[in-house]
Amino acid sequence: MRFLATVQYDGSKYSGYQKQPGKKTIQTCLEEALETICHKKVLVHGSGRTDAKVHALGQKVHFDLDLSMTKEQVKKALNSLLPDDIYVKDIEEVSNNFHARFDVQKKTYEYILNIGEYNPIEKDYVYQFNQELSISKMKEASAYFLGTHDFRAFTTTDEKESYERTIYEITIEQSKQYIIFTFTGNGFLRYMVRNLVGTLIEVGEGKREPKDISNILKSKDRKQAGKKAPACGLYLKDVFY
Amino acid sequence: MRFLATVQYDGSKYSGYQKQPGKKTIQTCLEEALETICHKKVLVHGSGRTDAKVHALGQKVHFDLDLSMTKEQVKKALNSLLPDDIYVKDIEEVSNNFHARFDVQKKTYEYILNIGEYNPIEKDYVYQFNQELSISKMKEASAYFLGTHDFRAFTTTDEKESYERTIYEITIEQSKQYIIFTFTGNGFLRYMVRNLVGTLIEVGEGKREPKDISNILKSKDRKQAGKKAPACGLYLKDVFY
Repeated sequence: MRFLATVQYDGSKYSGYQKQPGKKTIQTCLEEALETICHKKVLVHGSGRTDAKVHALGQKVHFDLDLSMTKEQVKKALNSLLPDDIYVKDIEEVSNNFHARFDVQKKTYEYILNIGEYNPIEKDYVYQFNQELSISKMKEASAYFLGTHDFRAFTTTDEKESYERTIYEITIEQSKQYIIFTFTGNGFLRYMVRNLVGTLIEVGEGKREPKDISNILKSKDRKQAGKKAPACGLYLKDVFY
Repeated sequence: MRFLATVQYDGSKYSGYQKQPGKKTIQTCLEEALETICHKKVLVHGSGRTDAKVHALGQKVHFDLDLSMTKEQVKKALNSLLPDDIYVKDIEEVSNNFHARFDVQKKTYEYILNIGEYNPIEKDYVYQFNQELSISKMKEASAYFLGTHDFRAFTTTDEKESYERTIYEITIEQSKQYIIFTFTGNGFLRYMVRNLVGTLIEVGEGKREPKDISNILKSKDRKQAGKKAPACGLYLKDVFY
């Protein structure tokens, strides 16, 4: 039986989602919990990786179990075994040809930053930018990212796949001292959301103009885009199939 | 020159406010930072201790410096030296007979719990109660705590001072899936807020009746009150002089 799980995690103390030798990762924790349940190794397939210290409100993973357990029992067993900073929010049964990564239609990421005073209690969950930003300029700039583009300027250069991605929607809203960015697209390259946010921040600071985005995209040159925003403000919010 | 500082901290990784040999505490961090600034030991006097893992939005501390530094310079120097989970939000100069503990008039504590689904991202900041509670019953019960009472039933029994305290105001509000309690009083005994919350929770669950509070207070017996609520949901919000 194949299960699709919605997983939430506080990424602060993890080296990211994906299994790496000798590192504490989300995938490792999930696989260890499943091995305890099944008494054998179970491979967990995520919708994609998240970087070290990045959080998830709705990461999706699939795995196969040959035990006769209901989805409620699997959820309960996993949550009793997982560390308390990882939580399986929902589990559903899916067909055996479903794949958590290959079948992704859309993903939504959220990025939160604080333009107010430093707050030590949220330092691992909200980027402490602690300076004013022009939301209207960032909104204007963000429009250039919409649609299908080669996003090579917004990722690491060692990717081997296609750099073309489609962004369907970007929202930038202020709530009290927080600015919340959301990005919905058919997929995101490594560090892409953090590089988009970092570049938008430089527009919001007045260091770049909104129209500069167009040339940065065309350049396909990482050095033309802004600094990568810190991991702590980033949340994988939802994955759509 | 005597300074009064408003200090915020994420208490998750600390053994509480008060200095203890071999333990990581807020007071120790403040004194170490001041020692670096002054090249000599500086004693920091807090408004009172907070327990391990309890947070502060407005702890107040005083200390004496014989350097010619402005309050802005002291704030900046401290924040550059303190770990990033402790932040000096404000500093003011006070007279040399001011005392952060002895001169307290009122303190406000806040306690936050989640009656919705478990959230791994807030586990160190919000008590994950994750079950429904009757707010109206808790409000009714909280009225019994108002005024001046002997709160022996709500503290550890090894206190040597008076157990009499006055609570001026208690509010219990719901915001989304969160219940936020605030307690304002002339002072609080050790574990008192957490014991008050724990007892109110048992009323909210229907395990006790609001009117039982009166007998618990009269009993002066810790065993009659409810279980101590966890430290992670508690915030020292403000101290008034």
